[in-house]
Amino acid sequence: MRKRLFLFIALAVVLGGGRLFAQELTMDDVSLALDMIWLIFAASLVFLMQAGFAMVETGLTRAKNASNILMKNLMDFAVGALAYWAVGWALMYGTSGGGFIGTDQFFIAGADSEIYRDWMFQVVFAATAATIVSGAMAERTKFTGYLLYSLVISAVIYPVSGHWIWGDGGWLAEAGFHDFAGSTVVHSVGAWAALMGAIVIGARRGKYVKVNGQIVTKAIPGHSMPLAALGVFILWFGWYGFNAGSTLSGSDPDIAWVTVTTTLAASSGAIFAMFTSWIWFGKPDPSFSLNGALAGLVGITAGTWVINPLGAVVVGAAAGVLVVVSVEFIDKVLHIDDPVGAVSVHGICGIWGTLAVGIFGDLEKIDSGLSRVGQIGVQALGVVAVFAWVAATTLILFGILKATKLLRVSPTEELAGLDLSEHGAESYSGFQIFSNM
Amino acid sequence: MRKRLFLFIALAVVLGGGRLFAQELTMDDVSLALDMIWLIFAASLVFLMQAGFAMVETGLTRAKNASNILMKNLMDFAVGALAYWAVGWALMYGTSGGGFIGTDQFFIAGADSEIYRDWMFQVVFAATAATIVSGAMAERTKFTGYLLYSLVISAVIYPVSGHWIWGDGGWLAEAGFHDFAGSTVVHSVGAWAALMGAIVIGARRGKYVKVNGQIVTKAIPGHSMPLAALGVFILWFGWYGFNAGSTLSGSDPDIAWVTVTTTLAASSGAIFAMFTSWIWFGKPDPSFSLNGALAGLVGITAGTWVINPLGAVVVGAAAGVLVVVSVEFIDKVLHIDDPVGAVSVHGICGIWGTLAVGIFGDLEKIDSGLSRVGQIGVQALGVVAVFAWVAATTLILFGILKATKLLRVSPTEELAGLDLSEHGAESYSGFQIFSNM
Amino acid sequence: MRKRLFLFIALAVVLGGGRLFAQELTMDDVSLALDMIWLIFAASLVFLMQAGFAMVETGLTRAKNASNILMKNLMDFAVGALAYWAVGWALMYGTSGGGFIGTDQFFIAGADSEIYRDWMFQVVFAATAATIVSGAMAERTKFTGYLLYSLVISAVIYPVSGHWIWGDGGWLAEAGFHDFAGSTVVHSVGAWAALMGAIVIGARRGKYVKVNGQIVTKAIPGHSMPLAALGVFILWFGWYGFNAGSTLSGSDPDIAWVTVTTTLAASSGAIFAMFTSWIWFGKPDPSFSLNGALAGLVGITAGTWVINPLGAVVVGAAAGVLVVVSVEFIDKVLHIDDPVGAVSVHGICGIWGTLAVGIFGDLEKIDSGLSRVGQIGVQALGVVAVFAWVAATTLILFGILKATKLLRVSPTEELAGLDLSEHGAESYSGFQIFSNM
Repeated sequence: MRKRLFLFIALAVVLGGGRLFAQELTMDDVSLALDMIWLIFAASLVFLMQAGFAMVETGLTRAKNASNILMKNLMDFAVGALAYWAVGWALMYGTSGGGFIGTDQFFIAGADSEIYRDWMFQVVFAATAATIVSGAMAERTKFTGYLLYSLVISAVIYPVSGHWIWGDGGWLAEAGFHDFAGSTVVHSVGAWAALMGAIVIGARRGKYVKVNGQIVTKAIPGHSMPLAALGVFILWFGWYGFNAGSTLSGSDPDIAWVTVTTTLAASSGAIFAMFTSWIWFGKPDPSFSLNGALAGLVGITAGTWVINPLGAVVVGAAAGVLVVVSVEFIDKVLHIDDPVGAVSVHGICGIWGTLAVGIFGDLEKIDSGLSRVGQIGVQALGVVAVFAWVAATTLILFGILKATKLLRVSPTEELAGLDLSEHGAESYSGFQIFSNM
Repeated sequence: MRKRLFLFIALAVVLGGGRLFAQELTMDDVSLALDMIWLIFAASLVFLMQAGFAMVETGLTRAKNASNILMKNLMDFAVGALAYWAVGWALMYGTSGGGFIGTDQFFIAGADSEIYRDWMFQVVFAATAATIVSGAMAERTKFTGYLLYSLVISAVIYPVSGHWIWGDGGWLAEAGFHDFAGSTVVHSVGAWAALMGAIVIGARRGKYVKVNGQIVTKAIPGHSMPLAALGVFILWFGWYGFNAGSTLSGSDPDIAWVTVTTTLAASSGAIFAMFTSWIWFGKPDPSFSLNGALAGLVGITAGTWVINPLGAVVVGAAAGVLVVVSVEFIDKVLHIDDPVGAVSVHGICGIWGTLAVGIFGDLEKIDSGLSRVGQIGVQALGVVAVFAWVAATTLILFGILKATKLLRVSPTEELAGLDLSEHGAESYSGFQIFSNM
Repeated sequence: MRKRLFLFIALAVVLGGGRLFAQELTMDDVSLALDMIWLIFAASLVFLMQAGFAMVETGLTRAKNASNILMKNLMDFAVGALAYWAVGWALMYGTSGGGFIGTDQFFIAGADSEIYRDWMFQVVFAATAATIVSGAMAERTKFTGYLLYSLVISAVIYPVSGHWIWGDGGWLAEAGFHDFAGSTVVHSVGAWAALMGAIVIGARRGKYVKVNGQIVTKAIPGHSMPLAALGVFILWFGWYGFNAGSTLSGSDPDIAWVTVTTTLAASSGAIFAMFTSWIWFGKPDPSFSLNGALAGLVGITAGTWVINPLGAVVVGAAAGVLVVVSVEFIDKVLHIDDPVGAVSVHGICGIWGTLAVGIFGDLEKIDSGLSRVGQIGVQALGVVAVFAWVAATTLILFGILKATKLLRVSPTEELAGLDLSEHGAESYSGFQIFSNM
């Protein structure tokens, strides 16, 4: 049937002659097959998170910029995947140069099926970090500039700090830093780049208006809550791949534990963000509730394997409260314009999740040999080190783009919308849409 | 690479010392790993059904209530998951108190990895039952009331009847009742709660208008067929987890059988609903065709493992016809306002599917020791018992909410739309939308 | 817990008495379980591609035809699944009649769990071929005609050429033709039917207008780029099932290889289509970039297992360029109206992908015993043979439908939109939508 015959013959050849495939699996083959199925399942789910991010960012911004943000979400994966193939993987997982950077396996040269499998699982994580930035810089970033900085983040910035924590011999890993699925490695890296980007590029026009010497903050509502909500559901779905896949083994019984803590933290995050917005603003706010689920997910990502279910509820609850406070603070006090709240969701809750490993984590499972205080310390060290690396490099990166006029569209283009000015396209042909600033 | 080193050490510790992980899987480990991968895969798909329900319910209702229905779909999972963790699981799967209710494992205390795995698989079923209600009561239910009744359904009402059928020693299970994946346990429970809710809360304003002493039924079309269709595709996708995951074993060869009957029943349901609407109303109706696919899926859910492919086509066909007749009857004759047809899809087709087990099911596979007539009888008994339990408890529940003014928004709020009145939000900022009643 | 007890007993009976289920898996059981989990995972993902196609086609056409195209995408799966159950599977995978057609297993009679599993995996491929047609013939095809030709394609046309290549003893397979996951078997078959359909039915009204004896091509923009982009992300996600599932074995280490080449080709396709449109039209075009990702995916589908990562990047890049050139050529030069570019994406890139197997493929893995030139020749032969079969049969099919007035709606119906004229429905109730031709 189908190519079975070909496969059979080919495999017999590959495996060295007379060996019959289906009948002669060894226990080692089975173990590898379980890992393969598990990691490809997980990688597929994490890939779909690209759709989740695209829908969330599109839904929470304006109709006139929809195609632009969709293009960015598509192209950061496309560009990022090639970059991570050529360079990123090597810098992250190549033989360590002093614990700071990988040094070989460019173009994943010499890979066997386990390396291919691991590359597939890791490339979707790299893409997640890159795509976080697009939300915070939405509605005003030049497409060319976007492509360039996505490339640099996926090729260099993400892999280097990733190497410190997940690379063999990375200095933070050696120090005992624990980040199971990437609160810091993935989410914070994306968020700090997003923060620097939002600062360097400045706010959208009309967002902060000076009235009688006072800065007034205007809300710029997104154009489609159904898309935003769909995106959050897809992200949550993908997170089962993100977190449970990070066991890296299909025969690890703790897969179940990880899915339970992930589910509880997300639920708790949504609930607490909802109540926080309810108490604060008088009504349960949809955007905050959606972001609350994501906050809980980001929060539990680092500690999903070492924090117990009750701890997960607490971590999620705190993340849910934090995200509302942080979004308001960044917007109303700092006047940094982050249209989708990416810095709060992925950065602030990423810090919280990383520290929560030290506060709530099972020290025996973490197995760093550190005391609780020591573990919290090393978690904090990791947070600071990664922030320093990403903030410094992206500040330079965005600075160069700004200096070369590649970062921001003109006010006229911004007013017309990036769909028209950057792509000559419209996203909702035939619909009557009102200009919103 | 990555955390493999940590994992390795940790597992070595967990497993008791010198045992090398990858090299020493036993056949028992493999069996557990297959079950784990299978059930977490399935649970993830069933989780995504929340997105499916959210899109269907949003698409089939009006734009002014979109954020509200999205919030309900998000929060019933969030609230339901915490409730099912704290109480629901214990009442459903704890040690049986006389076959009627579980009595231990609150907060899934003392769980091992198999219990965590099973909780993960079951919590998404509990959430499915809860979320069905939101559709039938859409566009007029207070958000506070919604949160309260979702909590009670997930914590108590669903788990108790669930215990009767799926709990160890449940009285209906002992009687020989067979419901493989939950036509009754999940779908009917949601539908009867929905029915009682729709009755107690009353119709949307403008839905049934008295003209010359005659009640005239007005159609209130949904605002986005693409979202509704997307939702149905996602639900169908999720159903492969729902039904095939219910083998509960990754090494059960009948996984394939279940996917085949599921596919055929859904297809047949869509086709027969389409033709029924075509003959009845003159044109093939999109909403009915979409609901027909769901009707076929609900119909085959109970018997997916014991009904053969031809039987599945018949079960789906009948469900497809039934859903059209039932929607019309409930709307035009009973004048009960169910905006998305949830009672017909999940309740009427849930009954049909449950009875179909007795009519078409392989008695040897069912293995209850009953004759065909006896099996049909016990299936009917289950239908009636579950209806009685759910109808009685939810009638009280909705009655209390109504009496305490927590059930329904005011006519002004309903007219303005629940997005604005309940959440201070709008779903489609920038779009020109006409008021629809 | 749950039905575990029943299952246990039932399986014990099925497996012949005293054998204890979980404790006594043999290595053969494990191998089958790995294949089962893998193929059902893959089949589920490929099923979801129906949602992807539905969203792409809906997004790239006009709002007044949205329900119609959604209905078509739903019903071609429903009708196709029953057809593939009754007839299609038998013609494709039944005992070969001289290498040209399968001859038994109608209604998958006598199937065991492996056949059920394989049917489930294959039916979603058949549905993919059928659904491709709907896009190219969108916005003017009668619904009745659509149902009829979908039925014939799924029941006969697709299975017959499929038998040649994937059937046991198929003549093209015997000749050494290699098409791992279906660039030709699935995508080209759909595309050639689409091409013949688009030619026979003619262009949408207002698409090609004669001005001073010169034909002027008008662009008819789609109504929702977010839906189109969502569709592409879902399709890409589904493609991991499509390509990696086509290993047909859950213990094949090359699963990883396939996912890597799939990822790289898709990424490269998106990037090169984007740059091609950028250079050609002055701006990076969203539709072309999205179609570029699909082009890369179609391009790598045939050779995903035998082409290495660098080759995959090249195959994707060429597909990305090709798709832009082809869309423009078919539209502006040939004046064939293909609203979504289906012929270019699935047909032209399907040819390219099929030939690329010969050009870039590892001959040892292909294992046909042919030289490189010989392999390219046999790949070309397959392309031509399948084109001849599909073009001839669908030309007759669409000719009959046209002659019997079942193919095209009237100009008035087309102007009003097919939602209203064919289904009496509207897709966006409450929204202000402008007529677009």
